[in-house]
Amino acid sequence: MRSILVLNGPNLNLLGTRQPDVYGLVTLDMIDNDCIEHAKSQGAQVVCHQSNHEGALIDAIHAAKGHHQGIVLNAGAYTHTSIALMDALASVEIPCVEVHLSNIHAREDFRQLSYISKVALGQICGFGSMGYTMAISALLAHLEECS
Amino acid sequence: MRSILVLNGPNLNLLGTRQPDVYGLVTLDMIDNDCIEHAKSQGAQVVCHQSNHEGALIDAIHAAKGHHQGIVLNAGAYTHTSIALMDALASVEIPCVEVHLSNIHAREDFRQLSYISKVALGQICGFGSMGYTMAISALLAHLEECS
Amino acid sequence: MRSILVLNGPNLNLLGTRQPDVYGLVTLDMIDNDCIEHAKSQGAQVVCHQSNHEGALIDAIHAAKGHHQGIVLNAGAYTHTSIALMDALASVEIPCVEVHLSNIHAREDFRQLSYISKVALGQICGFGSMGYTMAISALLAHLEECS
Amino acid sequence: MRSILVLNGPNLNLLGTRQPDVYGLVTLDMIDNDCIEHAKSQGAQVVCHQSNHEGALIDAIHAAKGHHQGIVLNAGAYTHTSIALMDALASVEIPCVEVHLSNIHAREDFRQLSYISKVALGQICGFGSMGYTMAISALLAHLEECS
Amino acid sequence: MRSILVLNGPNLNLLGTRQPDVYGLVTLDMIDNDCIEHAKSQGAQVVCHQSNHEGALIDAIHAAKGHHQGIVLNAGAYTHTSIALMDALASVEIPCVEVHLSNIHAREDFRQLSYISKVALGQICGFGSMGYTMAISALLAHLEECS
Amino acid sequence: MRSILVLNGPNLNLLGTRQPDVYGLVTLDMIDNDCIEHAKSQGAQVVCHQSNHEGALIDAIHAAKGHHQGIVLNAGAYTHTSIALMDALASVEIPCVEVHLSNIHAREDFRQLSYISKVALGQICGFGSMGYTMAISALLAHLEECS
Amino acid sequence: MRSILVLNGPNLNLLGTRQPDVYGLVTLDMIDNDCIEHAKSQGAQVVCHQSNHEGALIDAIHAAKGHHQGIVLNAGAYTHTSIALMDALASVEIPCVEVHLSNIHAREDFRQLSYISKVALGQICGFGSMGYTMAISALLAHLEECS
Amino acid sequence: MRSILVLNGPNLNLLGTRQPDVYGLVTLDMIDNDCIEHAKSQGAQVVCHQSNHEGALIDAIHAAKGHHQGIVLNAGAYTHTSIALMDALASVEIPCVEVHLSNIHAREDFRQLSYISKVALGQICGFGSMGYTMAISALLAHLEECS
Amino acid sequence: MRSILVLNGPNLNLLGTRQPDVYGLVTLDMIDNDCIEHAKSQGAQVVCHQSNHEGALIDAIHAAKGHHQGIVLNAGAYTHTSIALMDALASVEIPCVEVHLSNIHAREDFRQLSYISKVALGQICGFGSMGYTMAISALLAHLEECS
Amino acid sequence: MRSILVLNGPNLNLLGTRQPDVYGLVTLDMIDNDCIEHAKSQGAQVVCHQSNHEGALIDAIHAAKGHHQGIVLNAGAYTHTSIALMDALASVEIPCVEVHLSNIHAREDFRQLSYISKVALGQICGFGSMGYTMAISALLAHLEECS
Amino acid sequence: MRSILVLNGPNLNLLGTRQPDVYGLVTLDMIDNDCIEHAKSQGAQVVCHQSNHEGALIDAIHAAKGHHQGIVLNAGAYTHTSIALMDALASVEIPCVEVHLSNIHAREDFRQLSYISKVALGQICGFGSMGYTMAISALLAHLEECS
Amino acid sequence: MRSILVLNGPNLNLLGTRQPDVYGLVTLDMIDNDCIEHAKSQGAQVVCHQSNHEGALIDAIHAAKGHHQGIVLNAGAYTHTSIALMDALASVEIPCVEVHLSNIHAREDFRQLSYISKVALGQICGFGSMGYTMAISALLAHLEECS
Repeated sequence: MRSILVLNGPNLNLLGTRQPDVYGLVTLDMIDNDCIEHAKSQGAQVVCHQSNHEGALIDAIHAAKGHHQGIVLNAGAYTHTSIALMDALASVEIPCVEVHLSNIHAREDFRQLSYISKVALGQICGFGSMGYTMAISALLAHLEECS
Repeated sequence: MRSILVLNGPNLNLLGTRQPDVYGLVTLDMIDNDCIEHAKSQGAQVVCHQSNHEGALIDAIHAAKGHHQGIVLNAGAYTHTSIALMDALASVEIPCVEVHLSNIHAREDFRQLSYISKVALGQICGFGSMGYTMAISALLAHLEECS
Repeated sequence: MRSILVLNGPNLNLLGTRQPDVYGLVTLDMIDNDCIEHAKSQGAQVVCHQSNHEGALIDAIHAAKGHHQGIVLNAGAYTHTSIALMDALASVEIPCVEVHLSNIHAREDFRQLSYISKVALGQICGFGSMGYTMAISALLAHLEECS
Repeated sequence: MRSILVLNGPNLNLLGTRQPDVYGLVTLDMIDNDCIEHAKSQGAQVVCHQSNHEGALIDAIHAAKGHHQGIVLNAGAYTHTSIALMDALASVEIPCVEVHLSNIHAREDFRQLSYISKVALGQICGFGSMGYTMAISALLAHLEECS
Repeated sequence: MRSILVLNGPNLNLLGTRQPDVYGLVTLDMIDNDCIEHAKSQGAQVVCHQSNHEGALIDAIHAAKGHHQGIVLNAGAYTHTSIALMDALASVEIPCVEVHLSNIHAREDFRQLSYISKVALGQICGFGSMGYTMAISALLAHLEECS
Repeated sequence: MRSILVLNGPNLNLLGTRQPDVYGLVTLDMIDNDCIEHAKSQGAQVVCHQSNHEGALIDAIHAAKGHHQGIVLNAGAYTHTSIALMDALASVEIPCVEVHLSNIHAREDFRQLSYISKVALGQICGFGSMGYTMAISALLAHLEECS
Repeated sequence: MRSILVLNGPNLNLLGTRQPDVYGLVTLDMIDNDCIEHAKSQGAQVVCHQSNHEGALIDAIHAAKGHHQGIVLNAGAYTHTSIALMDALASVEIPCVEVHLSNIHAREDFRQLSYISKVALGQICGFGSMGYTMAISALLAHLEECS
Repeated sequence: MRSILVLNGPNLNLLGTRQPDVYGLVTLDMIDNDCIEHAKSQGAQVVCHQSNHEGALIDAIHAAKGHHQGIVLNAGAYTHTSIALMDALASVEIPCVEVHLSNIHAREDFRQLSYISKVALGQICGFGSMGYTMAISALLAHLEECS
Repeated sequence: MRSILVLNGPNLNLLGTRQPDVYGLVTLDMIDNDCIEHAKSQGAQVVCHQSNHEGALIDAIHAAKGHHQGIVLNAGAYTHTSIALMDALASVEIPCVEVHLSNIHAREDFRQLSYISKVALGQICGFGSMGYTMAISALLAHLEECS
Repeated sequence: MRSILVLNGPNLNLLGTRQPDVYGLVTLDMIDNDCIEHAKSQGAQVVCHQSNHEGALIDAIHAAKGHHQGIVLNAGAYTHTSIALMDALASVEIPCVEVHLSNIHAREDFRQLSYISKVALGQICGFGSMGYTMAISALLAHLEECS
Repeated sequence: MRSILVLNGPNLNLLGTRQPDVYGLVTLDMIDNDCIEHAKSQGAQVVCHQSNHEGALIDAIHAAKGHHQGIVLNAGAYTHTSIALMDALASVEIPCVEVHLSNIHAREDFRQLSYISKVALGQICGFGSMGYTMAISALLAHLEECS
Repeated sequence: MRSILVLNGPNLNLLGTRQPDVYGLVTLDMIDNDCIEHAKSQGAQVVCHQSNHEGALIDAIHAAKGHHQGIVLNAGAYTHTSIALMDALASVEIPCVEVHLSNIHAREDFRQLSYISKVALGQICGFGSMGYTMAISALLAHLEECS
């Protein structure tokens, strides 16, 4: 049974619990549950983790080696500044799909650069919480194809 | 019944018919058929069009007004150079999902800029031909949500 | 009798027919008619043409040689990306006035560069459809002065 | 009766009085008279002012509040360097049309940036002294439309 | 018998028919004939094509597959702006020699970048119409060497 | 009773305990006490926190929601590199005043950019430890004004 | 008795007299009076001056030598363009605190550069008219400390 | 008898009267007297003027027309920011030698650009007050040569 | 007896345990042991520490004060992004030698900038694990020379 | 009888004598002989020279005056860095054709700039050793045309 | 017996003979002797060479082929400007270690770029004359490992 | 008796011997003689040297130590590219005056940067051959002042 790590970075823990008029009512817990259900329906399992600490995200990627066959990563603002996260993904050699809730390419200039993209399989952005389940499907299809 | 225009830009007509060792055996016809089948299974219809002419792509976007509720666009190399295509999308006000076969963010510098992204709902890249059906699903979900 | 080519580029065919609350109710047909009437009142004639195709605009500029003594050009988004249009104007050596409906200098950065300006007599922007008749007057006055 | 301030910046006082082979024989006085006549023919009045002092131009813009309904501004070289002039125009909220004798977009790089454009209604450049009367007409038409 | 496509881009159709004092009296027809004669003398054939449409040039490159063993390309102004043309050449995998009439490296900054060069065998510029026959010889020698 | 979080970033824990000839004898403890006394004198309370960990600073900002009505933030070197801290402040929507001991605008180029500034109420820099009590006063005045 | 020059640059004379919904009802006179009162309460005096002329501001800084022990300067738009003002402050060697009503670091790019900052003691921005009295306090504290 | 205008810009009035340990004891009066004596010894006369106002410097350059055959200009900080001064020099067509007390090329980056240089005969910098008499000699030699 | 802190940053914990064909079989433990042995042979001691957390690395540098006379630092990807680490080194004033396994100057552009270098004694890169013992020798020689 | 100088710059002396698998077996001697034979067949003579010294190449260009009617120059890496070589060519006013073995436009960024191109007749690159004889033919044709 | 070329570039001949208070008393002769002794102690020999001529350094690298198995290169200021030296090292394929006396990464911007680094095994900088013997050891260890 | 080295760089040996209509009839020999005469009249001697070799210029600067008290340097095109020449001047600590025949600040962009300026006493440009004697006078005055 395939296992996927769904990893969320800084500030994503705040999703849905405040400013529901802006970000909607979807909480990170609901996203995590959607991911778990979605994977289960495709015969796979999902483990979810969130941290505001760049180092903790790196640790989680390292720990994924041997336990997960794929990573869905929304690195939040670290996407644009963390070469260390990029290196961590390259080191563990686990296929990774990059997800963003908003269309980062239509936002501020400093959100146009993604270090994660340099080593990711692909990128999905702009589709809100739906992006996570899209990423899981794409990741499972990729793993199927490679096996 | 919802209708989606799947629009492909320059050089995508060559897909699959040559260099199968590089780009695989999937032709644009096969992608088009996948899109049609995928949409049908979700109760929607798809019309496919490809052109190597920037002007013809703009014409097709204009013509979509009143006939299609969404556009899936792989503008190929015009993605990076055509402000006119961006303006066309903005003018017709039809939701658009941007698709790329490869992960453009991991390629040459001049492929990092997308004018399409400035007005698109979201972007999906790096998942090969599967990106098109992912885009159709995302577009239909978006239309559902907005209706 | 002097003849002027009024040439419009990509997306300008959509003027007035949609989003009237944004762009007003003036259609390209109405602008064309205004141009024809305005020129006639000054003893000149106007021929109007619009295309979304960069190549077709170049063809039209080439064809103007020997038939028109001046060109009023709103190249739309091609203004900012087409060196080929600039070269076409330089090749036929017909005086050209550049027009833009909006004040492009107060918009996005990528709309600040105009290749057309490098070879145009002058530029008029920010005055909506009135810019076209202003351009025709300026062109006729220039031709008068040079004759 | 509408009143328009025609404001000229540095070095424009030298127009026509020297190098007639280069700049022609049109003096600033002649331009001012043309403006006055042109406005009168359209039922409006014009007050003309020129200064080589950035601060004096700002003072003049401030003083226009309550006395003039529009400003025609050729800020000369201050166009490219004066954020203070831009802020003055924004503060008094009087519609302004930017004029330049030459086509500044076809000249040196440092003449491509216009702070005035950020707050002006529109820009007219490259038509010599005729640009002033074009600007007055455009301004009066704009005021008509807004009233 | 080897066949070479000589492909010319925007504005090159105007060669020689006007401004003979500037560009000389050599027309595109004369260049085409020279190419045909030059190739014939080396036992090869040449087909010539010109278009002002970027899309038509891409179509022509696609159509060359299976019919021509080499391409001599003067993409005119598209040289500096068209990633799509570069991608077309890369897709068909036909060796291409880039030609320019003038020495583009001694002209405006925006003519210094050539997307064609990224995929071309080599570049010849600054030798006027003679550059085409030089390119044919170089291409035939390259094909000889590779066979 | 209003409560303000005084949050200090990397290396600020070292203040005063070493190099007293350079940085003076004021320790972070003394600054914290000054802040507490200053707020008390204005009928408010202050809670002080320092961390060298970017993630811990984000956690502290999250935790401030519901407990503090304002934040005084000296993010140290993270000021210039942390988009994640900026996003955290934007997410919790607590008014924040940015403080720096030195005048960062008169130092190295890489200290000129502040992501914190993009979302802060205002910035105070160059006044040493006095900047903190100035910030508290400004924050309380702002809260007074908004209430 | 210490004396401080409060110097205001271009367009600040317009404060409060117009657009009260945007800038509030605080006029420059009221700010000047607040400064005078605030200084008096701390045993110091304040002299206020405003000009839209860069040269007049330089003259005022020169004249401060021997009469004022500190300068509070809001140079308005000249902040971003005037090396001459920076040099004037450096020449007279009177400590200067830079004030801005708005948070300039959260505005347009061209407002991010401050030549004044290169020679100022510190900067206070984003706190509206309160920034002036904060600056006076900081300046007096600095003078106290240095004496 | 030849006449030369020695024109000094912002902050140069402060020379020598303060910080004698830094800038020496040479005042602007002494420099002016040196210039007058030096010119007299070569059979020419000198008129000296200084202003901190950019507009006043432009006025002075305009007024030089017909009265002076050459200008020695130390524009101070306006050297680096004033396109209007450059245009004034170009308009009056009086040969100008640019002088700077310090070697501006060895100072801050923003002092590397000189608009004055674009239209000046030559530049002399780094030789302190001696630069002025060097400039007068060079100017007189140039006038001799051209006559 | 001199003591040196050997500090390793993000992803260096993965050395040698995976991809032995790429990075060789040398683990971080082996490097640590080599360092300890190498120092011992020169009469010094070494303490080794690794963390993926930027904040933890800063804490470790702070804690070194009073316990270690030198630091050998391989900050991994934080080398290129962490101003905070640079500031920490500057604050504790312990001589530091920067080490990198690979020649970072021959890699991606974003690895060319090192904030650590701004405050380090020197840099050693490209010599794999040998770089650490070279650094220890250099550090001990430096300490010898300074004592 | 026309004479052409074939001048080769740094590292070109190593051609063919090593790494035959990379650069082929063609030595500089062989290229020189080809050039001599090729010129002779067209009734001209060739003198060949190579140096690794920038100064020696300048000396050789100077010495060509009066002895050679054309120069074929492969300046190697000096192409991208030597303004002095460009000035030498401009000074002697001998027509020069620039040659490169590889297509420098498809290589590293720092090889995209050619100072030689600013003054050369034209450029031939990407055709290996054949480029030299192509250059000789083009040069002789140019000399024929000009005579 | 292994042989290493120790090659020094411009201005390094001046070491130690002047400004001993700045650069110390170590002369290039002393460094050369240290290198010879250090190599001898490891069973290898060293040949030392210095030149201020870029071309002579290239010649020396060429001549090393077949005589030396490694190069220790301090190219001085040519490090930052000489693509030709980089190409020379790449051509001869002899492993090279780059040495600098000072930490070039902590100096002026124009000393941050090293062309040598693109092809060197590694870089050692900031350790004064000790860097040379460190380089010899590293080079010998590398040769040992590769043999 | 003071001695000055007048050092000329690449291409300056060609002065006056060709293109007399462009550069005039003044040869380098005549300039050298003028320098010798001019110095003699002021009780000093001059030694002149010219080379097209960067290394030879460095050698000459080194050799000046102990023999000359000042250097007048026209480094020609090496002015803009040679860090090594700048370092040589800094090493020998002989005061240097930089001379250029033309006003380099009014020429191409790549001639705006002068490495020589970073270490020169001052710069004189735009005065043709007269610049050399001006430089000698300035240098002698400087030496007088410092003695």
